[in-house]
Amino acid sequence: MRNIVSFFILLFYISLASKAQDTEKTIKAFFDEALTDKTAYKNLENLCKNYKGRVTGSEKAAGAVEFTFQLMKDMNLDRVEKQPVQVPCWVRGEKEVASIQSGKNGTKEVSVTALGMSVGTGIEGLTAKVVEVQNFEELEKLGRKNIEGKIVFFNRPMDPTLINTFAAYGGAANQRTQGASEAAKHGAVGVVVRSLTTAHDDYPHTGVMRYVDSIPKIPAVAISTNGADLLSASLQNDSELKFYFRTTCETKSEVTSHNVIGEIKGSEFPEEIITVGGHLDAWETGEGAHDDGAGCMQSVEVLRIFQKLGIKPKRTIRAVMFMDEEVAQRGGKEYAKQAELKNEKHYFALEADRGAFMPKGFGASVPDERLARILDLKKYFEPYGITDFVKGGGGVDISPLGQSGTPLSSFVPEMQRYFDVHHSGNDTFEQVHFREFQMGSAAIASFIWLIDKYDL
Amino acid sequence: MRNIVSFFILLFYISLASKAQDTEKTIKAFFDEALTDKTAYKNLENLCKNYKGRVTGSEKAAGAVEFTFQLMKDMNLDRVEKQPVQVPCWVRGEKEVASIQSGKNGTKEVSVTALGMSVGTGIEGLTAKVVEVQNFEELEKLGRKNIEGKIVFFNRPMDPTLINTFAAYGGAANQRTQGASEAAKHGAVGVVVRSLTTAHDDYPHTGVMRYVDSIPKIPAVAISTNGADLLSASLQNDSELKFYFRTTCETKSEVTSHNVIGEIKGSEFPEEIITVGGHLDAWETGEGAHDDGAGCMQSVEVLRIFQKLGIKPKRTIRAVMFMDEEVAQRGGKEYAKQAELKNEKHYFALEADRGAFMPKGFGASVPDERLARILDLKKYFEPYGITDFVKGGGGVDISPLGQSGTPLSSFVPEMQRYFDVHHSGNDTFEQVHFREFQMGSAAIASFIWLIDKYDL
Repeated sequence: MRNIVSFFILLFYISLASKAQDTEKTIKAFFDEALTDKTAYKNLENLCKNYKGRVTGSEKAAGAVEFTFQLMKDMNLDRVEKQPVQVPCWVRGEKEVASIQSGKNGTKEVSVTALGMSVGTGIEGLTAKVVEVQNFEELEKLGRKNIEGKIVFFNRPMDPTLINTFAAYGGAANQRTQGASEAAKHGAVGVVVRSLTTAHDDYPHTGVMRYVDSIPKIPAVAISTNGADLLSASLQNDSELKFYFRTTCETKSEVTSHNVIGEIKGSEFPEEIITVGGHLDAWETGEGAHDDGAGCMQSVEVLRIFQKLGIKPKRTIRAVMFMDEEVAQRGGKEYAKQAELKNEKHYFALEADRGAFMPKGFGASVPDERLARILDLKKYFEPYGITDFVKGGGGVDISPLGQSGTPLSSFVPEMQRYFDVHHSGNDTFEQVHFREFQMGSAAIASFIWLIDKYDL
Repeated sequence: MRNIVSFFILLFYISLASKAQDTEKTIKAFFDEALTDKTAYKNLENLCKNYKGRVTGSEKAAGAVEFTFQLMKDMNLDRVEKQPVQVPCWVRGEKEVASIQSGKNGTKEVSVTALGMSVGTGIEGLTAKVVEVQNFEELEKLGRKNIEGKIVFFNRPMDPTLINTFAAYGGAANQRTQGASEAAKHGAVGVVVRSLTTAHDDYPHTGVMRYVDSIPKIPAVAISTNGADLLSASLQNDSELKFYFRTTCETKSEVTSHNVIGEIKGSEFPEEIITVGGHLDAWETGEGAHDDGAGCMQSVEVLRIFQKLGIKPKRTIRAVMFMDEEVAQRGGKEYAKQAELKNEKHYFALEADRGAFMPKGFGASVPDERLARILDLKKYFEPYGITDFVKGGGGVDISPLGQSGTPLSSFVPEMQRYFDVHHSGNDTFEQVHFREFQMGSAAIASFIWLIDKYDL
């Protein structure tokens, strides 16, 4: 009897071990496929080169919708859909011009870019004296008498000592998002914001800003970090200098755009949906390569790899290219709204919107008992150097889904270079490294596959 | 009584905890200093831009010796030394020229670079039919009748599915190092080797090769991966095509060069030496930025950070810029020889020669009881995302020290991009990212400090 029990216990462990081996083999197959196939990388190149300027509401954005719709149609997926979304339409207008004008030191041109949703200066541009501040508290102390009629220059840098560059970004971002209204409260006529990057270069970094309705709307631009350092040094030398900038951006009527959705139907629980997505819109300063063409193409690549390896997921796997992440997040909201209207069952959602550098790991916001099992997945990723499995995840586009209880997750790549390119002219296809990008695709495919396979 | 014992136990734990906190604080100070100071990065730029072409035995190498000697002199270190080393002197000569010459398809120029220590073709160049092989076994099978009078084209790529790119490099490198003699055994007149990189581009990657003395010396070049793919496709189309290449490289008489050594004397055990080093020589195809100007400048940065923070190490800390890693490894051998002659006590040695990408961790070849304690250091590096602490470490330059018992260690950065630049025209200062480079400097400084502080 005892021998028979031992025999079954042994059998149990052998089956466990062989199951783990099968899992490891499948993940290795994901990585092998990703690292030897250039489809996704070429798709990304197409998206970047042919649909540069795909800011939400633009013609290029509409083109990117058609491109990705057709791309997924051609893959013979089980379903491909364009989901209509009403989006804002802000246009940049002519290339921005700016200069530091000092009676003592002459005029020096600097690189600026209008902030998204900013009003323009009008074709004459705006010229005024400058007051430099680090934060809103300084603004408050200076008061109206020192600010009225001037341009406020927000020059607080991202903290270079923070290893988590997203935290450094978060610590400096309110100058960009709220600086204009904060300055206008005190009578400022314009706002110049230090670009949100730890790099020192001549690329200005745009990004969305928001006006408070009750406060006059004044034009706002970001200045490159080199430009910001020059302006700050120039002000030390001549506090009476003037800053000139000219922007012709404006907000037009809303238009209809789309989320683009492609899916492989689940073989066991087709009504349970796992979403993996990025956002299709991108600032037109660059090509939207890392932010977030890469996340979109990695999501499509998950489906391609599943198809190529003949993986039949138990649940429906959706790749979603969200529209309008950068401005009003309408795509994410509409996706969640439609999910609710259609009574869809969303089992899990992952967002890839932190660039396509080397994968570091995944974050997940799920109930504790699921979290422990998800964190335990780390063991399968260690051979690939992917070891950061942490509590807490999500993303701008999937957060509305999360509000109705869907477990959320984020793909976390290495982040030291991300803000060099983020929202700038430097965010080009050439900045995306094939192997790093595809290590990400394989990691996401493996993670999604494990979530489905082990019912996590 | 029991209360008094409890009190002392408590005190003990408080002192342990505060010791750990102090350690964490010091490491944070290392990272803060590294991420906010550009000295090392500017030094690297100088080395790359002013001493491009510093192949061992060259004038530029002599210039780099003076530059780094003066750099460390100006730091007011306790001792700075130029240690004479006899080194080979191989000169590349004129820029290499090569083309695929097909009667059917015309002539196409391709990018090649002479392999280090290769003989030249002479000014007329070399033209011959081509036989493509993947490895030495194929060569053997083909035999003299298929090889004699031809150029052998070694086209085995680095395995793209290997996550460890150094392993992929190792798996393809014998074509470059031994291919010429292997081919000449069968009567080949020249050798063209696929560049050792996973990238697909037009940069040929050089590197050292060695002849077997008893076999005729035939000229050898590396061809870019794009060029290799073109040559292979062209051969499919026209197996009678000829390949032309012209190299005027030659080996001259040996010259005297130097290792450059700077040190901070130990406060408690000045006779015990901890070496941290990289190699100063570099292939002249590029600027030797990642390979290995970065490792040199990170080593100097360790000393600068110690000085800046007022750290007094117990043992003597030496930054060593080794000469001639790429060709004959004479610097490393001479350093170990002098250590033995002078009866120096080498406590520990670390080499940084794997590029200056994001630090991943450290490898160490030390006795087991020390290893466990070194692996345990990981806890201090986790806040910086540096988590790979593994058994096994060393480096070409420090391995002669290891032979006489010195514990060896290597700095291990992220490796997906390294072979894109390695030994190619693409290894320029611009490819080194400030934050990644300085995360490395801070990691190495922290590691060395911990080794010294905790007697590891």
